[in-house]
Amino acid sequence: MILDGRRAAEVLKQNLISEFAYLKENDIKPKMAIVLPLSNDASFSYLKARRKIAELLGVEIVEFYGQEDYSTSDYLDIIQKLNDDKSIHGIMLDRPFPKNIDEDQVYQALDYRKDVDGCNPISAGLLLQGKPSLAPSTARAILELMKFYGINLLGKNVTVVGRSRTVGMPTAQLLIKENSTVTICHSKTMNLADKCMTADIIIAAIGKRDFFTPEFVTSKSIIIDVGINYDDLGKMCGDVRKDVYDIVDSYSPVPGGVGPLTNVALMYNLLDAISKQK
Amino acid sequence: MILDGRRAAEVLKQNLISEFAYLKENDIKPKMAIVLPLSNDASFSYLKARRKIAELLGVEIVEFYGQEDYSTSDYLDIIQKLNDDKSIHGIMLDRPFPKNIDEDQVYQALDYRKDVDGCNPISAGLLLQGKPSLAPSTARAILELMKFYGINLLGKNVTVVGRSRTVGMPTAQLLIKENSTVTICHSKTMNLADKCMTADIIIAAIGKRDFFTPEFVTSKSIIIDVGINYDDLGKMCGDVRKDVYDIVDSYSPVPGGVGPLTNVALMYNLLDAISKQK
Repeated sequence: MILDGRRAAEVLKQNLISEFAYLKENDIKPKMAIVLPLSNDASFSYLKARRKIAELLGVEIVEFYGQEDYSTSDYLDIIQKLNDDKSIHGIMLDRPFPKNIDEDQVYQALDYRKDVDGCNPISAGLLLQGKPSLAPSTARAILELMKFYGINLLGKNVTVVGRSRTVGMPTAQLLIKENSTVTICHSKTMNLADKCMTADIIIAAIGKRDFFTPEFVTSKSIIIDVGINYDDLGKMCGDVRKDVYDIVDSYSPVPGGVGPLTNVALMYNLLDAISKQK
Repeated sequence: MILDGRRAAEVLKQNLISEFAYLKENDIKPKMAIVLPLSNDASFSYLKARRKIAELLGVEIVEFYGQEDYSTSDYLDIIQKLNDDKSIHGIMLDRPFPKNIDEDQVYQALDYRKDVDGCNPISAGLLLQGKPSLAPSTARAILELMKFYGINLLGKNVTVVGRSRTVGMPTAQLLIKENSTVTICHSKTMNLADKCMTADIIIAAIGKRDFFTPEFVTSKSIIIDVGINYDDLGKMCGDVRKDVYDIVDSYSPVPGGVGPLTNVALMYNLLDAISKQK
């Protein structure tokens, strides 16, 4: 089975439409700030997709652009204003930051109640401590995709390959909360193929194209590809080699798998953020 | 081999003595505040051990006692004063709190730079994000015990049984940082014995006496017992049944394993806290 993120996104958007309509009936005007780096092609295409879903849901987006010569304290000033502005419910900081920016200090300054992309250490800490929190949107997108396709996570063995702070680590936490048994693998893991092959579900999140080959899977495997790489022709591809698709029980493709759900997850986070600020 | 926490503590204390002596040569007077619940026997015995190591190292301890009728805001007032007091480098909050206290709010109020028992969500979040942070002292004690006995963690398969915020979860994070491959198991895990048997190292932290029986281990297993339970005669015991000792490669006993190292770990955390406040 293909775990089709575009299809899931279409259905979940309908769900979001009614959730946001309910807010409006209650006189809440959802508003999200995006602090962008210097404009570049990649951020622009992400931005277009975000503007589109925001428009669909009636979420006002305000955009702030960084400047090449911005210092950390310039960023901190922007964040402070957004934290204090009660009309703004969510704040998203886009990377890459201009050079010379202390990324950790910037993330730490963000009000965790408005941290719709789960970057602030308080968001991460509440997640680790098993408390309600805003998770990074990609991690949440992975869970939403599996839930949409009715994949039962309770007691399942999940191997997460990759320990990044935005994908691997928070996804592992969300899975533990769902009562999966989670193995976190990385570049120093021995016998990685074996650890994937014996899992019910594999989360492939290392960012190396064609890394996951048939020896990593069985006919019962569910594999979620979170890699974003480009092939020799410049076409987007994931971490999973295409011939794996013929073997496994289910897979999410790249593009068209987790990707289309990240903005949906972001909007779910915005809903959660709004309910924290009531 | 017995992983003897008392022996490790004796050696590490010598190490701490010279570290703290160095601080004094630099005119730093280490000082730690402990906020205690209503006095009870258990907290008193822990307290005695803490006072003893503090005295040995020349750390001044100030103690604050909660009252039965204390509200959350009474606790928050105490914490605010301790946060603001520049002579105090570390703050430890002892549980159980008086009833009616919002534990999460109290932990969140703690300045994470002084959070020597790693309870604050920022401490937990930095840990999850792979940044330097103060980990809960029991988690750090587990790592210190293994390091003392020269157990190599790189690439090792470690099964952590238990997902508590003070032991299982932070220990898993510390192990990932050490490049172990970590599997986090819990009450919903299937075939738990198998997941332990195939691991190089087992962290037993579920709090059920005699839970880990010979079927969980092999002759190559290293098992760290973090359980604190009591047998029918009221004697302290761990999660590991005694007949496991005869089979495994190495084990930490209860009492005398991780326990004696928790206050050592606390003092290492205090050292780290002091260096953050310089």
